[in-house]
Amino acid sequence: MSNDPLVVFTPSGKRGRFPEGTPVLTAARQLGVDLDSVCGGRGICSRCQITPSYGEFPKHGVTVEPGALTDWNAVEERYKSKRGLKEGRRLGCQACVMGDVVIDVPPESQVHRQVVRKRAEARQITMSPAVKLFYVAVAEPDMHDPSGDLQRLRDALAEQWQIKDVQIDLTVLQGLQPKLRKGGWQVTCAVHLGPQPRIIEVWPGFREAPIFGLAVDLGSTTIAAHLCDLQSGEVVASSGLMNPQIRFGEDLMSRVSYSMMNAGGAAEMTAAVREGMNDLFGQVCAEAGITRDDILDMVLVCNPVMHHLFLGIDPFELGQAPFALATSDALNLTAREVGLDLHPSARLYLLPCIAGHVGADAAAVALSEAPDKSPDLLLVVDVGTNAEILLGNTEKVLACSSPTGPAFEGAQISSGQRAAPGAIERVEIDPVTKEPRFKVIGSDLWSDDPGFAAEAGKTGITGICGSGIIEMVAEMRLAGIVDASGLIGAPEQTGSARCILDGRTYSYLVWDATDTGGPRITVTNRDIREIQMAKAALYSGARLLMDKFGVDKVDRIVLAGAFGAHISPKHAMVLGMIPDAPLDKVTSAGNAAGTGARIALLNREARDLIEATVRGIHKVETAIEPRFQEHFVNASAIPNAVEPFPILNSLVTLPEVSFNQGGDTGGGGGRRRRRG
Amino acid sequence: MSNDPLVVFTPSGKRGRFPEGTPVLTAARQLGVDLDSVCGGRGICSRCQITPSYGEFPKHGVTVEPGALTDWNAVEERYKSKRGLKEGRRLGCQACVMGDVVIDVPPESQVHRQVVRKRAEARQITMSPAVKLFYVAVAEPDMHDPSGDLQRLRDALAEQWQIKDVQIDLTVLQGLQPKLRKGGWQVTCAVHLGPQPRIIEVWPGFREAPIFGLAVDLGSTTIAAHLCDLQSGEVVASSGLMNPQIRFGEDLMSRVSYSMMNAGGAAEMTAAVREGMNDLFGQVCAEAGITRDDILDMVLVCNPVMHHLFLGIDPFELGQAPFALATSDALNLTAREVGLDLHPSARLYLLPCIAGHVGADAAAVALSEAPDKSPDLLLVVDVGTNAEILLGNTEKVLACSSPTGPAFEGAQISSGQRAAPGAIERVEIDPVTKEPRFKVIGSDLWSDDPGFAAEAGKTGITGICGSGIIEMVAEMRLAGIVDASGLIGAPEQTGSARCILDGRTYSYLVWDATDTGGPRITVTNRDIREIQMAKAALYSGARLLMDKFGVDKVDRIVLAGAFGAHISPKHAMVLGMIPDAPLDKVTSAGNAAGTGARIALLNREARDLIEATVRGIHKVETAIEPRFQEHFVNASAIPNAVEPFPILNSLVTLPEVSFNQGGDTGGGGGRRRRRG
Repeated sequence: MSNDPLVVFTPSGKRGRFPEGTPVLTAARQLGVDLDSVCGGRGICSRCQITPSYGEFPKHGVTVEPGALTDWNAVEERYKSKRGLKEGRRLGCQACVMGDVVIDVPPESQVHRQVVRKRAEARQITMSPAVKLFYVAVAEPDMHDPSGDLQRLRDALAEQWQIKDVQIDLTVLQGLQPKLRKGGWQVTCAVHLGPQPRIIEVWPGFREAPIFGLAVDLGSTTIAAHLCDLQSGEVVASSGLMNPQIRFGEDLMSRVSYSMMNAGGAAEMTAAVREGMNDLFGQVCAEAGITRDDILDMVLVCNPVMHHLFLGIDPFELGQAPFALATSDALNLTAREVGLDLHPSARLYLLPCIAGHVGADAAAVALSEAPDKSPDLLLVVDVGTNAEILLGNTEKVLACSSPTGPAFEGAQISSGQRAAPGAIERVEIDPVTKEPRFKVIGSDLWSDDPGFAAEAGKTGITGICGSGIIEMVAEMRLAGIVDASGLIGAPEQTGSARCILDGRTYSYLVWDATDTGGPRITVTNRDIREIQMAKAALYSGARLLMDKFGVDKVDRIVLAGAFGAHISPKHAMVLGMIPDAPLDKVTSAGNAAGTGARIALLNREARDLIEATVRGIHKVETAIEPRFQEHFVNASAIPNAVEPFPILNSLVTLPEVSFNQGGDTGGGGGRRRRRG
Repeated sequence: MSNDPLVVFTPSGKRGRFPEGTPVLTAARQLGVDLDSVCGGRGICSRCQITPSYGEFPKHGVTVEPGALTDWNAVEERYKSKRGLKEGRRLGCQACVMGDVVIDVPPESQVHRQVVRKRAEARQITMSPAVKLFYVAVAEPDMHDPSGDLQRLRDALAEQWQIKDVQIDLTVLQGLQPKLRKGGWQVTCAVHLGPQPRIIEVWPGFREAPIFGLAVDLGSTTIAAHLCDLQSGEVVASSGLMNPQIRFGEDLMSRVSYSMMNAGGAAEMTAAVREGMNDLFGQVCAEAGITRDDILDMVLVCNPVMHHLFLGIDPFELGQAPFALATSDALNLTAREVGLDLHPSARLYLLPCIAGHVGADAAAVALSEAPDKSPDLLLVVDVGTNAEILLGNTEKVLACSSPTGPAFEGAQISSGQRAAPGAIERVEIDPVTKEPRFKVIGSDLWSDDPGFAAEAGKTGITGICGSGIIEMVAEMRLAGIVDASGLIGAPEQTGSARCILDGRTYSYLVWDATDTGGPRITVTNRDIREIQMAKAALYSGARLLMDKFGVDKVDRIVLAGAFGAHISPKHAMVLGMIPDAPLDKVTSAGNAAGTGARIALLNREARDLIEATVRGIHKVETAIEPRFQEHFVNASAIPNAVEPFPILNSLVTLPEVSFNQGGDTGGGGGRRRRRG
């Protein structure tokens, strides 16, 4: 056995003997320990910080003496005095092994560090971004052996970082020569890694500042952008914007129609969404205090119509059977070629689309929620103007989309509004008195709590948001104000003076502040109809996938989407919006599409993974499935005309009331909503 | 032995037996016979035309009966009636084998047909362009198995043409869907072949019209473009334009200086040359009657300064040692990203540069003249404002460049002019009478022939072009009007009244038409000095390569360049412009750089070849070779102060005259011309 000092790395447990004087970074690399370095061991980047431990380590069979590492050298001292180092930390490239030693690699020194996700059940993101920085020393030109500056830079990347056959953007080549000289033949390169690695920016010397990427979820209604530090993985700014295409149509189909009816309409919408995205990126840059030029990578997820319009492809074919996509594969583009104003060489990755109605956003949800990795049968419902639905487990995954329309986002509801301070978001209705109590966004008090009036005075009580309307309708059903067919009862039927005649049907009065000049908030029977259609569309999509999977129930349900996070599982089930399931198995994933985009931004292997996964997903086209229509009709009832919902019935009692008076036959009927 | 019919293909001699009913195209493909097809055997493109032969073929041991091929079918009949077919021709995809048959594949039906080059010693160009057309039938979309239109097009290219993993330009993707439908799911694709094949255009149905490529030689003084049919290889139009950068400086170094002295100067020159090229492309399109959109590929060759300025790279570093190129490798770009107005997806290939002063034009000359394939030692001199010089054989190849300046192009010569009607291009001086006779461009008569005056009246006698000035100075030396040091003698020394005092030196009067209001054409002693410096630069570059090669003489000399083609070998040798060699071993290659560009345009394998060849070329930097200066001083004498030129001396007698009168010491001195 060698007498060379033994080096034990934690937390990996990797160990080996190295000659005295071996830098810790070298030992780590030889053992395959995940220790970062951007400057290649030059004591500049401090990414290789390690913490040596001293004393007895019976577990490792090692005693670490005080002189186990070399003393601080000039490079390390200079770094510490200029930039500071945490107590106990050393630079792995400078500290050399002199005796047996135990060395801890803190998480922030790992290349493949993990980004913590908030939810316990979520898988962690391992850092492996597509765009990374590499610091290199480049050979100077030699007249006797002429070669281009680029060729020597390529050689340096191959020798110092094992990046072979690297290409370069013309714009970077144009500015390369002065940068190499300004940096004294030492430069930091941003390299887009992939089958064909490409230099997308070069800075003279060592670049201290981080570089950034954007994860963008382009929805029909909202565009959400998350700005991420491509080294730490941290989200440093998030912002959202209304999709400016809304002026061309609220839902997807009305936008497709706009392009069909107006020459140049598609191009107008393309310009509008790109302009909106550029505005949004300006906001996130301002929030983070960076410039657009610091953003070198971007991942975009969206539904197929948004995808085509964003890319400048007329979505005409998506408006009619067979709903053919121009392309379903993932796309690697530059931000510039689609008119986005980021770094001139910034890259853009679009996740693959699953089918004509199931887009890159659904692929992103699949990446984030990974039904294909779930041992139990998982239903993922991404609630939005258009709902993406995934059902699967490790055996197989099915996907479809369903046109829920904008009702869940508060649109087309008489007192509906977006989730903002003053909006009713929680509701309870006393089944005996039929009196409502509620909470508004911006206050923790219920409306019957003392002090509510004062609190609510700050925001006002302005309307009902999406999650509020779900609770409202479900509570009305539980309180016997609405029957299974979706009819609101007359005061004489319900025993409540809050049921008031409103044309030929009744409305339920939630709040009346007209005497003080405030609003009067009611739920009309038309509102109930809108919610019935939206929830029926959503349920029948899920039910169709269950048919195709050959099951009657699912083990788990994840509600995704910005709005999905706020839905009360019990009320969603009373409404019959989701299949019957144990309430504790219904969880929220927040903006899962956005999270999927962030995963693809921070981990390039995830891009390969989701491309492969998507190829394996079985797509179901709701538009051509006869049973979809049947499910839709059944699901128009509250909760459902045929499904038994046994778990729900064990938790609540649904009053057996019927307010049909022979006029409106209720039930939402077979009217199929346009895709939204 | 099988009883299947025997099929013998000529001229390849490939033969095999095939079941009755096998289409000739299928048989050819199975035997690896080079038979073209763009439409994939659908009877549309007619590229697979063949000529069956009937009767006895003892050489092949075959008797071909009249029924050896099936009768004309409907597809073939329709093709013939609509488009016509040459007598005896059949469509190889329609005619099927029914008996033993001999089938000739005419040159125009070969994929890898050869393009005939004019010179006997030149290697043929085998057609294998980087951009090719492929006609495919694409599967229609299927809702039950959704996939993008692009994915089905990719599948079709893989199945029908074995082109795998094909990518697409975003601009093509944007218009893909309507084209597929307009073509009834049959489209013609232009694919850029390479390690990563890419669809760069799609047309509905079968594209009848040819596609084109440009071979462009961007010189300091002239830009020359050759428009080639990418299927036949034929040059369909050629045109040239003055390089608009000339207004920033006549030679390369003055342009580099311009960019150093003027902020934004490099960008101005970049814009100027790109604009000039776009004008030139407009000319060639007009000449050929095509549109810019029909041009899908382009190859560019140029010297390093032109290369950098064209690409938008400041040539600053090329103006000073160590003359570092930004990049020396070949570049694959799009025409659009360098501001060229061709098809929106047109590709652009730049040949590699050899060194800081030896550019892609020299690489193109190496590709065209192939010194690396020459068994005897070959000197290639590309004469231009900057001369590229290659010396080598199959063992090794050396390269350098030498700054000859624009004198050979008629600039900086008092009566100099570009080669145009009226310019003196041939000269003889009677050694006894010292009287000149000459020919002008545009007339076949010598100036002392009867009728010359009338002929010359049409064009005038306007000046002396480059090849004319070489003959003029050489004839003056041969007639004893100029001595070895380059001094023109006084009338009393030469015995000619045509030697007239002009300031402190003498001029030689060639033509005087001042009495009729015409020009007075003289050769001044300053003109002689300019020619001495130009030829000395050229010779010393060649001589330096000979030193490095370790030889005193070369076996063959090729003079290249638009101007090189017109140089008289004897006169060039009297001048000492090229090394001593048998006159029949000095040939002209015309615009070899342009030919190299054309080879790279028509044969993509030639691109790989020249990239490998260039890596093996040993570069010699004249600026740092002390012997260059010594060679230059010696070569300033006419023909040379130290070299014996034995072959030249066996052909001509150079008068031993000396006109030195103690004033001007002659000989051109050591003044080094700036790179031009």
